[in-house]
Amino acid sequence: MIQSIFAPLAAGNPASFGLTDDAALFTLASGRESVLTSDMLVEGVHFLPDTNPSDIAWKSLAVNVSDLAAKGADPEIYLLSIALPRSSGREWLAGFASGFSEAQAAFGCRLAGGDTTSTPGRLTISITAVGTLPSGTMIHRSGARPDDLVYVTGTIGDGVAGLELLRGNVRSIDDEDAAWLVGRHRRPVPVAAMAKVVRDNASAAMDISDGLAGDFEKLCAASQCGGAVEAARVPLSGPARGLVECGALDLETLLCGGDDYCVLAAIPPEKSSKFEEGARKAGALPVCIGRIVSGGSVDIVGGDGQPMQLSRPGFDHFAS
Amino acid sequence: MIQSIFAPLAAGNPASFGLTDDAALFTLASGRESVLTSDMLVEGVHFLPDTNPSDIAWKSLAVNVSDLAAKGADPEIYLLSIALPRSSGREWLAGFASGFSEAQAAFGCRLAGGDTTSTPGRLTISITAVGTLPSGTMIHRSGARPDDLVYVTGTIGDGVAGLELLRGNVRSIDDEDAAWLVGRHRRPVPVAAMAKVVRDNASAAMDISDGLAGDFEKLCAASQCGGAVEAARVPLSGPARGLVECGALDLETLLCGGDDYCVLAAIPPEKSSKFEEGARKAGALPVCIGRIVSGGSVDIVGGDGQPMQLSRPGFDHFAS
Repeated sequence: MIQSIFAPLAAGNPASFGLTDDAALFTLASGRESVLTSDMLVEGVHFLPDTNPSDIAWKSLAVNVSDLAAKGADPEIYLLSIALPRSSGREWLAGFASGFSEAQAAFGCRLAGGDTTSTPGRLTISITAVGTLPSGTMIHRSGARPDDLVYVTGTIGDGVAGLELLRGNVRSIDDEDAAWLVGRHRRPVPVAAMAKVVRDNASAAMDISDGLAGDFEKLCAASQCGGAVEAARVPLSGPARGLVECGALDLETLLCGGDDYCVLAAIPPEKSSKFEEGARKAGALPVCIGRIVSGGSVDIVGGDGQPMQLSRPGFDHFAS
Repeated sequence: MIQSIFAPLAAGNPASFGLTDDAALFTLASGRESVLTSDMLVEGVHFLPDTNPSDIAWKSLAVNVSDLAAKGADPEIYLLSIALPRSSGREWLAGFASGFSEAQAAFGCRLAGGDTTSTPGRLTISITAVGTLPSGTMIHRSGARPDDLVYVTGTIGDGVAGLELLRGNVRSIDDEDAAWLVGRHRRPVPVAAMAKVVRDNASAAMDISDGLAGDFEKLCAASQCGGAVEAARVPLSGPARGLVECGALDLETLLCGGDDYCVLAAIPPEKSSKFEEGARKAGALPVCIGRIVSGGSVDIVGGDGQPMQLSRPGFDHFAS
C-alpha cells in the first residue's frame, strides 16, 4: 500500500528514500534553522464523517502549513501518520493520496515519511511538518509591542460558516454562496508564501485556527500586552457577510469560530506598508484590524464603540 | 493542561519555548544532519486497553527511539500528538506524563511540541522523533553485502511472549518469569547509545519491530541480497526459552512476533569485533545469528539444517 499509494508523494525527495527506509533524512543549508509543527485531525472532531478523503488530506496538510507560514518558515517536508478504520478501501486511499498530491503542490512541500496503522476507532491523521528559515528569524507569539498594528491576512469566519451550513444549523439564502463557504471549510488555503513576509516584518504572529477572538487573546497574553480589534474592520467575505446581514448567523460566530488559517500578525507601524505590499504580492489579503496597547485589556470593539461581550472565547477541542 | 502536565517535559529545551508557541525550533550543529521518524500507537492495536498510562507513554517514545538508534541517529527531540478519549482524566494524564519523563531521561531526548485533541474513538498517540548524526553517516536498510554478518543486539521474542501471557493465550509455569516478560512487552528498552555503534560499523540496519523473520526479509530485500539466520543462534531470554521448552509457546512465535526493539544489523566481518565491543559497552547484547549471501533466498534455518516454514512472516497491522 505504502509503495503504490504514498511513495509517489515522496518522489523527487531523495532524503525520503522512496519511503522504503525507517526514517527520513533532513539536511539544513548553512545559516538556516528548522521549525517543526504537529497537528492531529480526528474524524468527528476536525472534520465530519463522510468528508471526501481528498478534502481531509488537503486540510490535514493545510493546517500544518498554516502554522509554519505564521512562524515565518518556508514549508519543506512532512511526515504523515494515519490510523485507518478497516472500512478505508483502496478507492478511499487513492482519493486521500490525491488530496495530498494537490496540497503539497500548492504549498511547496513533499512527503518524507510516516506510519500507517489500522484502528478500531476513528480515522486519525497526524502530520508533522518541517519548515526552514534563516537562523534567528522565527517569529513568536510573544514579540508584540504597544502601538504595533494588528493585521489579518484573509477573510474571517468563512470556515465556521461553512461548517454551520454543513451541519444544517444555518440555512443559506444562496446555493452558490453556501457551496463557496463549505469549500472554504473543507479546503482552507494558507498562503505558504506569507512565510517570508511574516519573518521580514512581524514582531509577533500566529495562525488563526481557534477563532480570531481567542487567538488574538493568546497573542496578547504571550506578548504581555493588551490589544483592541475593531469588529467593523475585520474582513468578511461576501457570502459570510450575507449570512450575517440576513440574520442567519451572528458576527460573534464568525469572530470566534476558528478554521480561518490565515495569519494574525503584530506589525510595527513603520513596517506596515512593506507588510501590506508583500502580503498582497504573496496572494494574501492584508487588513489592519486594530492595535496592540500596553496593559492587559484585550477587546473586540463593536460598532457602538464598546467591547463586545463574547460568550465563546474561541474553539476548544476539550470543551466542545 | 499543556502547561501543567506537558511543559515540564520540555524544560531545559529553549527551542520548545515552554510549549507556549505554535512550533518548535530545531538547529543543527555544523556537519550534522537530522533523521526523522514517526510512529503511531492505537489502543487495542499496539497496546491493550487498560494498560497503565505510564507504560503507554514509555512504549510510544521507545519505539521511535528504537528507529533512530538503528539508523545511527542520536535522539534529540520529539513532538507528541495525542487524541484522548473523554474518559482520560487528570490522574491518567499525570501518569502518562510521568512515563514520558522516565523514558526521555532514559533515552536522552526532550519534548519539543505537539498537539492534543479529544477523540470519540480510541486513544491514539503519534510521535515524531528527531535524531542527529554526522552528515553522510545514516545507515540504511539497503546497504547489506554478501558475507556481512547478521547481528541482533538483544533477546528476541520477549515482547510477544509477554503479550501472549497478557492475553491469556499462554500460561506460564513461573509467576516471576511471566511478570518479567510482561514488563518486556510493556516497557521495551531500545539502547539509544547503539546509534554511534551502528553508524560506525553497520553496512545496513533496522530495528526489529515487526518480528525478526519478517524484518530480516525486509533488510535482505532492500539490499537485494539473500540471507540465512540460524534459529539456534538467536538469543532467547531465560523466561522465553522456558516457555518454549515447556511447550507453552513455539519458537516460531518468538521469531515472528515482533515488539523486540533491538537492532538488526549487517556487519562486514572485519568490523565485527569492533561492533561487538561497542555494543556491549553501550549496554546491548550483540549476537551474530547468521550471514548475508548473494542471491534471493532468505531463510531462518532450523535445528535440522533445513529452512523453517514460517506460517506468519511478521506482524502486519493490516492483516491482524
